[in-house]
Amino acid sequence: MARQTRASRDRMLQATETLLRERGLSGAGIQHVVARSKAPIGSVYHFFPRGKTQLVAEALQIHADKARALLERFLSDKAVPLPDRFRALGRNAAAGFDEAGANKGCAIGSVSLDLDARHEALRTICEGAFDGWIAAIAQELPWSDEAKRRSFAEMAVASIEGAFVLSRARRSGAPFITVGEWLATTLEQTATGGKHGSAAQ
Amino acid sequence: MARQTRASRDRMLQATETLLRERGLSGAGIQHVVARSKAPIGSVYHFFPRGKTQLVAEALQIHADKARALLERFLSDKAVPLPDRFRALGRNAAAGFDEAGANKGCAIGSVSLDLDARHEALRTICEGAFDGWIAAIAQELPWSDEAKRRSFAEMAVASIEGAFVLSRARRSGAPFITVGEWLATTLEQTATGGKHGSAAQ
Repeated sequence: MARQTRASRDRMLQATETLLRERGLSGAGIQHVVARSKAPIGSVYHFFPRGKTQLVAEALQIHADKARALLERFLSDKAVPLPDRFRALGRNAAAGFDEAGANKGCAIGSVSLDLDARHEALRTICEGAFDGWIAAIAQELPWSDEAKRRSFAEMAVASIEGAFVLSRARRSGAPFITVGEWLATTLEQTATGGKHGSAAQ
Repeated sequence: MARQTRASRDRMLQATETLLRERGLSGAGIQHVVARSKAPIGSVYHFFPRGKTQLVAEALQIHADKARALLERFLSDKAVPLPDRFRALGRNAAAGFDEAGANKGCAIGSVSLDLDARHEALRTICEGAFDGWIAAIAQELPWSDEAKRRSFAEMAVASIEGAFVLSRARRSGAPFITVGEWLATTLEQTATGGKHGSAAQ
């Protein structure tokens, strides 16, 4: 693909991701993507012959991969104690949320809450994204019990997704800091021999 | 208001709440509410002169109050140790999610992720709902430090909202059980003298 063509395609995907983050599935209609990316409407169908479903599916996958890379970067930093990596993740997410205008959620989370029976392909991408993030977090946890690692990682992903929800309502990223702090606290306590979550076992 | 009239109005609000839970703000258009509640379209504007905004605002407030009552009922049961009340809440939410068809989120959370600058009145209702739930949880916590109580309660609300997100993607309420278990575990450990979340202090 020629460079300029690739740039147009990328710009449409970028616009779709932003619209999903702002208003969920209904916000990412073709006409909105065209308006936001300033692409000619014909070129959308040229690049994405299956229309909105293809555009949203590709944008979600890109978002899922970016978020996983971000999680891995924060949580694999061996120079910092593990609980402090969760604190740093929370602070970073809070700052990022505020800097982006305090009006953007997680594309995967926003679409998950809009799914209906017609969206099985998108649902599979959302489920796969969460599974990937859970695996990325679980592999950094110190416990030998894999079910316990996965269970805590699921709690971490849930609380981060919920922080997006609360932050949108409050127009402040502060809930991410709260979530990072409590995940860190729980890790510190569980690492030193406390009881542990056993739901997944 | 005559009984039959009241029943029609309630049916429209009920349909709006269900649509918000299934597909967020875009799912609760007047035409969808009419179709779902089997109300004549004229009667929507008779009961709700300000149209969709009024309908959604009232449905959100009803949902917020119901959810707060449910939280208070589970968390104030003094016959059960406090951590086990969070476990019971998680199990109940998981069962309720699955029984309702595994396709309904929280109306407040779904709308929060769809908000834009036109929706300030709805945003205020969502923010108030979360604040009310946080207060309801915080008042049951055993710590003298109010900031710590509010901080843990915010973590609890965030993780429950996130459990809706993961459960929608997975079509299974299991994440609520995971969240309830880890909130309980954290409470048990913190009650016995561990470090605590201090983000809000």
